[in-house]
Amino acid sequence: MGEALRGLKRTIMCGQLRESHVNEQFTVMGWVQRRRNLGGLIFVDLRDRTGILQVVFGEEINREAFEKADSLRSEYCIAVTGTLVKREAPNSELPTGMVELKGESVKILSESETPPIYIKEDLDAGENIRLKYRYLDLRRPDMQRILMTRHKTAKVVRDFLDENGFLEMETPILTKSTPEGARDYIVPSRNYPGMFYALPQSPQLFKQLLMVSGYDRYFQIAKCFRDEDLRANRQPEFTQIDMELSFVETDDVIELNERLIKRVFKEMLDVDVKLPIERMPYKIAMEKYGSDKPDLRFGMEINDLTEVVKDVDFKVFQDAIENGGSVRAIKAPNSAGMGRKQIDKLVEFVKTYGAKGLAWIAYKEDEVKSSISKFLTEEQTKNILNTIDAKVGDLILIVADKNSVAFQSLGALRLHMAKELGILEGNKEFRFVWITEFPLFSYNEEEGRFQAEHHPFTMPMDEDIQYLDTDLGRVRAKAYDIVLNGEELGGGSIRIHDTKLQERMFTAIGLTHERAIEKFGYLLEAFKFGPPPHGGLAYGFDRMIMFLAGTENIKDVIAFPKNQNAFCPLTEAPNVVDKEQLDDLGIYIKE
Amino acid sequence: MGEALRGLKRTIMCGQLRESHVNEQFTVMGWVQRRRNLGGLIFVDLRDRTGILQVVFGEEINREAFEKADSLRSEYCIAVTGTLVKREAPNSELPTGMVELKGESVKILSESETPPIYIKEDLDAGENIRLKYRYLDLRRPDMQRILMTRHKTAKVVRDFLDENGFLEMETPILTKSTPEGARDYIVPSRNYPGMFYALPQSPQLFKQLLMVSGYDRYFQIAKCFRDEDLRANRQPEFTQIDMELSFVETDDVIELNERLIKRVFKEMLDVDVKLPIERMPYKIAMEKYGSDKPDLRFGMEINDLTEVVKDVDFKVFQDAIENGGSVRAIKAPNSAGMGRKQIDKLVEFVKTYGAKGLAWIAYKEDEVKSSISKFLTEEQTKNILNTIDAKVGDLILIVADKNSVAFQSLGALRLHMAKELGILEGNKEFRFVWITEFPLFSYNEEEGRFQAEHHPFTMPMDEDIQYLDTDLGRVRAKAYDIVLNGEELGGGSIRIHDTKLQERMFTAIGLTHERAIEKFGYLLEAFKFGPPPHGGLAYGFDRMIMFLAGTENIKDVIAFPKNQNAFCPLTEAPNVVDKEQLDDLGIYIKE
Repeated sequence: MGEALRGLKRTIMCGQLRESHVNEQFTVMGWVQRRRNLGGLIFVDLRDRTGILQVVFGEEINREAFEKADSLRSEYCIAVTGTLVKREAPNSELPTGMVELKGESVKILSESETPPIYIKEDLDAGENIRLKYRYLDLRRPDMQRILMTRHKTAKVVRDFLDENGFLEMETPILTKSTPEGARDYIVPSRNYPGMFYALPQSPQLFKQLLMVSGYDRYFQIAKCFRDEDLRANRQPEFTQIDMELSFVETDDVIELNERLIKRVFKEMLDVDVKLPIERMPYKIAMEKYGSDKPDLRFGMEINDLTEVVKDVDFKVFQDAIENGGSVRAIKAPNSAGMGRKQIDKLVEFVKTYGAKGLAWIAYKEDEVKSSISKFLTEEQTKNILNTIDAKVGDLILIVADKNSVAFQSLGALRLHMAKELGILEGNKEFRFVWITEFPLFSYNEEEGRFQAEHHPFTMPMDEDIQYLDTDLGRVRAKAYDIVLNGEELGGGSIRIHDTKLQERMFTAIGLTHERAIEKFGYLLEAFKFGPPPHGGLAYGFDRMIMFLAGTENIKDVIAFPKNQNAFCPLTEAPNVVDKEQLDDLGIYIKE
Repeated sequence: MGEALRGLKRTIMCGQLRESHVNEQFTVMGWVQRRRNLGGLIFVDLRDRTGILQVVFGEEINREAFEKADSLRSEYCIAVTGTLVKREAPNSELPTGMVELKGESVKILSESETPPIYIKEDLDAGENIRLKYRYLDLRRPDMQRILMTRHKTAKVVRDFLDENGFLEMETPILTKSTPEGARDYIVPSRNYPGMFYALPQSPQLFKQLLMVSGYDRYFQIAKCFRDEDLRANRQPEFTQIDMELSFVETDDVIELNERLIKRVFKEMLDVDVKLPIERMPYKIAMEKYGSDKPDLRFGMEINDLTEVVKDVDFKVFQDAIENGGSVRAIKAPNSAGMGRKQIDKLVEFVKTYGAKGLAWIAYKEDEVKSSISKFLTEEQTKNILNTIDAKVGDLILIVADKNSVAFQSLGALRLHMAKELGILEGNKEFRFVWITEFPLFSYNEEEGRFQAEHHPFTMPMDEDIQYLDTDLGRVRAKAYDIVLNGEELGGGSIRIHDTKLQERMFTAIGLTHERAIEKFGYLLEAFKFGPPPHGGLAYGFDRMIMFLAGTENIKDVIAFPKNQNAFCPLTEAPNVVDKEQLDDLGIYIKE
């Protein structure tokens, strides 16, 4: 058993010590990062969450402490008291590198076995062992920095929202299905056997009710749950910064959130976000970038060649145009010399996005080569190059297809080429854009019907309400996403607050009145009692932290995440439960 | 459909307007509290979360607005623009009572049906209708004040803990059983059919792991879950202010939390809590107040009469003393004249706490009456009255029984008498006390074994470790509860951080090594790698808000609570789920 503190107090943390502290006595507590025995002197790197401090033990400093220090091993937890002195050989890589603590006494608070993973930055151990020994993985300084970033970001967000009149309010975890449409986690009820609570996919309905209740401005850093097959960077439980405001329109929500974003990036990274942030209608984003979350840190926009190739005698182009599609292209710089094999890979790449093929034109110094040269006159080739404003060295990549396929495949190809060409390497920019005027509905080809693109409470744009009964595909929403470097950081909308309009929405997406009442009846009911105009937004908090901490792995920003199978290797959850408990709940397990 | 804002902005909130704003133009938005039509003038009390403002519409102010105002009804949601003027007849009951807004234009943002409950303070509607129409219940100004108190308290707590080096960290909701021992809510896993997650009863294990991980000071305002039969003021999901600190002992945790409590009560209620807060060992609390959460706002302590009655020839006393029990009493002031019927009720009262009876002595001006006068000499009676320092008018109430029964019944009787006598009426005091030196174990008579009084990770007091293998009833814990006015506000302990000691604890409570490993193996495993000394505390946040808001109903401090059957009348959760979903999860419902 380790030694007890018995009144010993820590007086400072390791990473805080500087030259100005020299000649004072301190007590520090932490973990042995490493120990080097140099005969008459033992050096210990002592680590706490603030950093590392060198401690030196010597026979001449204190014999008893020196002898005890000899038994120290990595990850022992110790307390050291001593005088701070200037180092003879400073270490410029450590903030504390000018000083060291002369170990006058030491307590071994607890010993450590040899850890199964190294406690160091950028560990490349396998995910499973990291998660199983998460308590050791979380000792790594880079993990600690990330989780401190998470804490501080939450603080900055809360301070800002509090200053701006928002109330943080808790909504239930044990509740009923929410309208996001993913699979719910459910919780069997003991009081009502055969009945289940659902864990919320978001606080959407509750926050709207809070607006009906007159709370005016609500927020919550809220846990949300989705029982989906986990793609990379998805977790069964995740965190949203969720907000809702009354008496607002799109501009109000955007203006406030721009100030929030500016504050967060300034305080966390000392980055100045220039306001106002650019806004781009969905239609433009799709046409120019083939994506509703365009990465604007580089160009390579999609061009429409339909007009200029309309007379080209190439069946693929003609078919696409005749079927209402189009011919579109991007140009990749410095790529005209790309070999045939590489280009073939690009063809395969766009096919995974449903494109039937990929034509190309390589604009070389001395010649123009093309996969479709036999269909193009010199004039037509020149027109294409002019239209797309090609320069020598450009490789033009062309897709002729349905618009949706052309956009999606070229949008993906654009990102792919940027990666291949290293265009974003070393890029430190944070490029924000609001995407607006989203379609209110999307067509579900499998089910042969329209469905709500976001959720069924989103308000249509005023000028498009007229199409609600006639042309759903044409109705745009008062919805907005905030996109950062090609990733969706958050999104929201102005909500419907009128029962009649809400019912028209349900009809539009084929939700019968009965089913709508069953699912969301209480919201419709609430709308009978003077609901205010309202709207809101939710950020993926985990995603935000990934940006702020500079990591691409969502598991790095969550203290105790699940693995890809929604399993926790540390606690071994999920796990079996006693039969009596299932009996209480009135459920059987299928054999 | 209501009118749209179309760019109209609110410029101030209703409750903020004062005489200094007179002659300026404002736009306010809110709900019609009431409307009075006085012929040429229509008065509307407009309500938002900040308060009420009188708006006056008149033909001479603006005819169009006046005519529209005539159609206004209670709870219509409206926007009004106009000039603020001084009222001719001020209303001193409203903070805005010196002014009124001349309604120059009005928009009806949405209409309202007649609400099924009144939107007013101190509504006495039935609970079920309040919960079913919670969105209307939450419009009541008293409910809004409480939930704003909740928001602000959370902010004060977070600010304080952030300033003191705590990191707010999220722990999982989908996890494994935690060690509190109540019934878990469980969540079936789709990826592992037949397996279940458990919702946490507290973040206990995770916060200890975070200490092992070196995060040093953790906190979380955390949702916790217990599937228990709901007593009054229990909810299936509730909120804790949960914290844990490394490198600390009891005094450190107490000192920090005293500063937190002082801050909260100062900022929320402008109440000065005097520090340090009194500390009282459990043993004293039981002996003097018959409770581990004594209400110290009044005296009426329990006195030990065992010594002074040891020669009284009364079998009940003698039996109690011979069986290791005692004879104890409280004195109720101004109660000597209590009638026989009333006293009989007190006898019945103590019997519900297991006492076999209740003897009494009434010290009247002219005589001393007693239920046991025939057993008492005059001398003995005088000795009793002296021992208990009785004054004329006192009623001495005596229980002779096992100590535990004497304490419990007299402790309850003490509170009961205080209530009967109105001793605390109008008392505004906040009387805190730390209860310390709790027993580490309690004896479960049903199961014939000792169990952990708090949870099995609590550290024994150093001087009592020696009894761990020999006399469990004697081992005291490094545990502490903070008690306010007779209610437990929070509690915590210093934790065991030594694997061997932890295993002795498990042995003591009859948890086999295998079962301990199965339940908490990862914590034991973590303790092999240099765990720091650590301890913590958790407050019932809902309870804290009840104190700060002055309500005795937990449902008043939770926006969307469940009823006594863990049912939500608003959303009708729990509810049925589709058979396909159960199939996915591999579970059947019993018919």
